[in-house]
Amino acid sequence: MPDLRKDPIVGRWVIVAKSRAKRPHDFEFTFRRRRSGFCPFCPGQEDKTPGEILAYRNPGTQPNREGWRVRVVPNKFPALEIEGDLNKRGEGIYDMMRGVGAHEVIIETPKHLWSISQLSEPEIQEVLCVYRDRLVDLKKDPRLVYGMIFKNVGPAAGATLEHTHSQLIVTPIVPINVWEEMTGSLEFYHYRGRCVYCDMIYQEVATEKRIVLDTPGFVAFCPFASRFPFETWILPKSHASHYEHIQKNAVEELSGVLKQTIAKIESALDQPAYNYIIHTAPFDTQELAYYHWHIEIMPSITRPAGFEWGTGFYINPVPPEEAAAFLREVELDTQETELLPSKQTG
Amino acid sequence: MPDLRKDPIVGRWVIVAKSRAKRPHDFEFTFRRRRSGFCPFCPGQEDKTPGEILAYRNPGTQPNREGWRVRVVPNKFPALEIEGDLNKRGEGIYDMMRGVGAHEVIIETPKHLWSISQLSEPEIQEVLCVYRDRLVDLKKDPRLVYGMIFKNVGPAAGATLEHTHSQLIVTPIVPINVWEEMTGSLEFYHYRGRCVYCDMIYQEVATEKRIVLDTPGFVAFCPFASRFPFETWILPKSHASHYEHIQKNAVEELSGVLKQTIAKIESALDQPAYNYIIHTAPFDTQELAYYHWHIEIMPSITRPAGFEWGTGFYINPVPPEEAAAFLREVELDTQETELLPSKQTG
Repeated sequence: MPDLRKDPIVGRWVIVAKSRAKRPHDFEFTFRRRRSGFCPFCPGQEDKTPGEILAYRNPGTQPNREGWRVRVVPNKFPALEIEGDLNKRGEGIYDMMRGVGAHEVIIETPKHLWSISQLSEPEIQEVLCVYRDRLVDLKKDPRLVYGMIFKNVGPAAGATLEHTHSQLIVTPIVPINVWEEMTGSLEFYHYRGRCVYCDMIYQEVATEKRIVLDTPGFVAFCPFASRFPFETWILPKSHASHYEHIQKNAVEELSGVLKQTIAKIESALDQPAYNYIIHTAPFDTQELAYYHWHIEIMPSITRPAGFEWGTGFYINPVPPEEAAAFLREVELDTQETELLPSKQTG
Repeated sequence: MPDLRKDPIVGRWVIVAKSRAKRPHDFEFTFRRRRSGFCPFCPGQEDKTPGEILAYRNPGTQPNREGWRVRVVPNKFPALEIEGDLNKRGEGIYDMMRGVGAHEVIIETPKHLWSISQLSEPEIQEVLCVYRDRLVDLKKDPRLVYGMIFKNVGPAAGATLEHTHSQLIVTPIVPINVWEEMTGSLEFYHYRGRCVYCDMIYQEVATEKRIVLDTPGFVAFCPFASRFPFETWILPKSHASHYEHIQKNAVEELSGVLKQTIAKIESALDQPAYNYIIHTAPFDTQELAYYHWHIEIMPSITRPAGFEWGTGFYINPVPPEEAAAFLREVELDTQETELLPSKQTG
């Protein structure tokens, strides 16, 4: 069972795994990439993953067999484990608890594709519904307070497998960056009586210069203070704090916005490594007037160095106005995008 | 002139450079590594860098010629520029100012060595004195409030040149991570009347299990909530908030502690890429009872992925107790370390 440990100065929590390594070079094994042609996420390999937690399946098919369209399994090397109590305790001035939580993998398609943008909109809708279903299910557990859905694409963004997938980590504490978003947006709300994200949407749509996509219900833009080149956020225009309360109509619209935004970034930057993360309110809150769920997409074309780590002060060599202009200009051939072959077939 | 832009939600500042790139693939040029044998930091190449700001020189030598022992020059590709006023302004809900500040390179030795641990202790003392001298000089400028000294070693840690060097970025605002350290340690001080770092030192020295080195005036340990495998902090045992107030005796002792700590990490992990950062109090403060300057050393053997970016919640596969035990056991042949040849001669 991993530990959760709290930094006594800034309150940042760290998951510390119990290592079985005996010498420093053993630690490298954890990070080695799988290079073989074998893919544990392809159909017919269902017994190579832990048993499924949820799957959207074709009629008449059996769990942990072929016939699924989206499949959720526990991470084989989980950062957190679901069993047991938290055992919160101190060690002198330090605070810690057991690493209770969930770490799941969402296999987005049985096809060995390497990007979610290669899925059709109806297929992406099912992925977005799985995200919602898992959050709704896990928030019933009173030990858990936060669910983070994220996606790593490419080794430079931390991915170890090519077959397109997302991950879900559910934690017993609110992560520090989310906490800062919550307190920052609450402070703005107290001062101005409005949601800071709603204000951003209003200003971005009005000025247009950082807009990537603008649909009736969603907007994608490169934020004013982008940390990374081509960083892009997707927000629902109607105020909503919890992703898991998303409605079917919004899922349908979001699937197209997500597909096009990712496809534009992939086209502009020639298939970069990237991460996306769904930022949503903690489990133990009702609908919040001051917080607004959104998706942050961060291409990994620069690598943060010592200065960024030490200061939280990023250097971004590409102004978001230029990035957005490039992304707006990218022409997508939707038909072609859907039919792109994968780089490697499993 | 770059912009400084503030994220309206969490208050994080970003340096946004004005790009001259015309197409997305042009941006890559910024990050391309120099691979040729030519080294602009070697003696005889003084005209390949901007003119020196400070150098410790042998008697009778001329500025911007050979004969220096440590040399400070402006960064050729600065993130911030020293000329002009801040021009603080708003753009709707967003805050910004001009990117005024300093970005300097400290060339630690004329020898083409790739690690500060290859320098002798007297040579490292001169580097530590240069750090101090530059902070003392730059804090006279009322536009500037924070000086961050850091070091990137290896491409995976953001270094573009091999010849051992450090950097200094001086900013007109306090970076968010430093602000969080300041407010977190102030809160601890209000509650318990003590410096949280002094408490950490007391507990680490008493329990010993995370100690790497323990000398009369300094302690090096792997912190309880280490974000990265083999993360190691060096702290002065006597409370002090500002690095630039360091005394000569302490410089002498710190040079040995820094050299040995880096050499142990290099030996244990086989010359990893790493960063170190000196965390010190802002320029516009007097000696602070609640803050404690220190050096954080972060080997780059894992790469943070989407989860870490989104949450500030790190996953560390190596418990700090194990890392510290490995580092304590590393035997250094001091003589040999000093005489190690560089990987490549300039």
